[in-house]
Amino acid sequence: MVMVKMVEEGNAVPEVQAVFDDIKKTRGTDWINNFWKVLATSPVTLKRIWENVKIVMGPGAIDPLTKEMIYVAVSVTNNCEYCIHSHTAAARAKGMTDEMYGELLAVVGLANETNRLANGYQMEVDERFKPY
Amino acid sequence: MVMVKMVEEGNAVPEVQAVFDDIKKTRGTDWINNFWKVLATSPVTLKRIWENVKIVMGPGAIDPLTKEMIYVAVSVTNNCEYCIHSHTAAARAKGMTDEMYGELLAVVGLANETNRLANGYQMEVDERFKPY
Amino acid sequence: MVMVKMVEEGNAVPEVQAVFDDIKKTRGTDWINNFWKVLATSPVTLKRIWENVKIVMGPGAIDPLTKEMIYVAVSVTNNCEYCIHSHTAAARAKGMTDEMYGELLAVVGLANETNRLANGYQMEVDERFKPY
Amino acid sequence: MVMVKMVEEGNAVPEVQAVFDDIKKTRGTDWINNFWKVLATSPVTLKRIWENVKIVMGPGAIDPLTKEMIYVAVSVTNNCEYCIHSHTAAARAKGMTDEMYGELLAVVGLANETNRLANGYQMEVDERFKPY
Amino acid sequence: MVMVKMVEEGNAVPEVQAVFDDIKKTRGTDWINNFWKVLATSPVTLKRIWENVKIVMGPGAIDPLTKEMIYVAVSVTNNCEYCIHSHTAAARAKGMTDEMYGELLAVVGLANETNRLANGYQMEVDERFKPY
Amino acid sequence: MVMVKMVEEGNAVPEVQAVFDDIKKTRGTDWINNFWKVLATSPVTLKRIWENVKIVMGPGAIDPLTKEMIYVAVSVTNNCEYCIHSHTAAARAKGMTDEMYGELLAVVGLANETNRLANGYQMEVDERFKPY
Repeated sequence: MVMVKMVEEGNAVPEVQAVFDDIKKTRGTDWINNFWKVLATSPVTLKRIWENVKIVMGPGAIDPLTKEMIYVAVSVTNNCEYCIHSHTAAARAKGMTDEMYGELLAVVGLANETNRLANGYQMEVDERFKPY
Repeated sequence: MVMVKMVEEGNAVPEVQAVFDDIKKTRGTDWINNFWKVLATSPVTLKRIWENVKIVMGPGAIDPLTKEMIYVAVSVTNNCEYCIHSHTAAARAKGMTDEMYGELLAVVGLANETNRLANGYQMEVDERFKPY
Repeated sequence: MVMVKMVEEGNAVPEVQAVFDDIKKTRGTDWINNFWKVLATSPVTLKRIWENVKIVMGPGAIDPLTKEMIYVAVSVTNNCEYCIHSHTAAARAKGMTDEMYGELLAVVGLANETNRLANGYQMEVDERFKPY
Repeated sequence: MVMVKMVEEGNAVPEVQAVFDDIKKTRGTDWINNFWKVLATSPVTLKRIWENVKIVMGPGAIDPLTKEMIYVAVSVTNNCEYCIHSHTAAARAKGMTDEMYGELLAVVGLANETNRLANGYQMEVDERFKPY
Repeated sequence: MVMVKMVEEGNAVPEVQAVFDDIKKTRGTDWINNFWKVLATSPVTLKRIWENVKIVMGPGAIDPLTKEMIYVAVSVTNNCEYCIHSHTAAARAKGMTDEMYGELLAVVGLANETNRLANGYQMEVDERFKPY
Repeated sequence: MVMVKMVEEGNAVPEVQAVFDDIKKTRGTDWINNFWKVLATSPVTLKRIWENVKIVMGPGAIDPLTKEMIYVAVSVTNNCEYCIHSHTAAARAKGMTDEMYGELLAVVGLANETNRLANGYQMEVDERFKPY
């Protein structure tokens, strides 16, 4: 059960509404999801996280769909239910198919397995892998 | 310090050498990295994990470079030193640039941050995100 | 769904009731929360954990409110739903305001982000940070 | 081994040097630690993270020393070696004594233990803990 | 809420039904639990994971009950609700009593605590513990 | 690098030496490993953790070797280097063979993989797995 009373659009103070408006404009939607309505209880955090998201998740050397799938990979590893749902929805909106989601989870699962084999045997990094 | 005495190519029993040979052939290299030399102390595990890697990391609906970056994202989240080095090297060999690595880590860092904001506020999944 | 049948006050064996009584007396309440009712199914664990909590969470060089906020920080990082709720309630009872909770989560989120940047780049500890 | 070639002060491009200068001014020091020299390989990330740190770690409803201890608690739970060293140094500079560090780790350890007892028994949140 | 539409026995394609049949035969049951019905949405993953489970969890140098308890220990540490339930049920079917479950969780909790004490103090491995 | 100056036997205050003596007597050895020498910097924590270890790791419904293997499973999942080494050494002293260690890590790896598949698909617990 959510630990704060979410801020709805009608009740937002101006600096919160300004972020809500920017979210809707940037995403081309008229809908604000719970993540932002909850953060709006701390306007400084709302604005800070939204600015970070815009910088990190926008176009760059990695395409937006790949970024969303990386986001899902982290969220699954950490078992963040909200994040798994919200970023899977975002990845689907950007073109992730069911087959791609199945492959994504297969990679995430295998990586979590081999991470523990490497740890458990305390494997030493090969000289060839050292960057310079 | 690695917890077992690694199996070098000259000392491998036939079923281990067969996997080593398949790794070299599949990857078009004459080099075996420590991960496999360590797993070779348990031949059943060596063969099992290699078969999994071939199935999961090969071509599919997601391209191999993206799969490697997802692997790195999990390894960074879990702080597996060996895996960060080996899968970053693999991703670089498949075309990941320095700029892409910087963006990859930016996404991984941000996802780890917002995962905790979602958890800390115990956010509830929006109805619209529910799959069906 | 809880995996054992909780021990209610009326049904407790003497060594369990003695711990329940000490919890109520120490906390100045007449209420036992589920954590202890569940642990009561293993009386040795109930007594052991309660003794640990009294030693660790009591007055010392760090004040009790700060200790509770540290407890919440760990519980959020691990995503332990029960612990987030119970220790947030305890922190509120000791004076944590909504504004403080917002700042606490902001620190927890940022720390989880920069932890991954440090891991992902495999940063080396500065000589000046080494203790001696 | 660090995965990029760190940016030293003499080699910094202007937007990186501007952040370095702000770090030194804000902290009243003439020294830049490795964290920032590494992030400087991605100037956008350097600036973004530094702006976040200034907002989150500065004065507010929670005092700066407590914030640093919360940072250490997360870093210990995640086992981020660099972060444990750097934020412990920061906490010491702000007044954390050896005794306080011992208590901090005791709380972090106990929280990680009870988090797993709560998970393992799948404890249900008491009605009284629900926020509203 | 599960993110895919589970495959029920009546609707399974032949390669999925073949795995379902092998699960039922191997386990001496006529029941398929959700884990497999969900994985069946990715037939390659279904077959791959089932083959892994048969190799890893079958008889060997460690008895099957101990293997299930190790599985539970990992699942509790990671807080995987489904896995805690399914592997606890499997361990019970193989002889784990309530008392053993209480002891298992006590070990898991203590290990999570001392892991953080070792990390927090950055303890160095004793020479005597080094394998060779 | 360890963050405190370890307490050696010659320098221990009486309450620390009493714990050191009990460790040596209980274990039938004349050697104290670093874990205890570090905790000795906080005598209350030293005594508290040792008392916990004696209660949890001693004989009970689960045999001591299985308990050590469970301890290793948690330590590998958390990637605690010190704990992997110390508890693997303890498990070996109690009879764990190389083959058993290989199987232990195989289970730990597989559990970490399937934990993420269960999380990623947000699998729902089967009614039959619910305890009552």
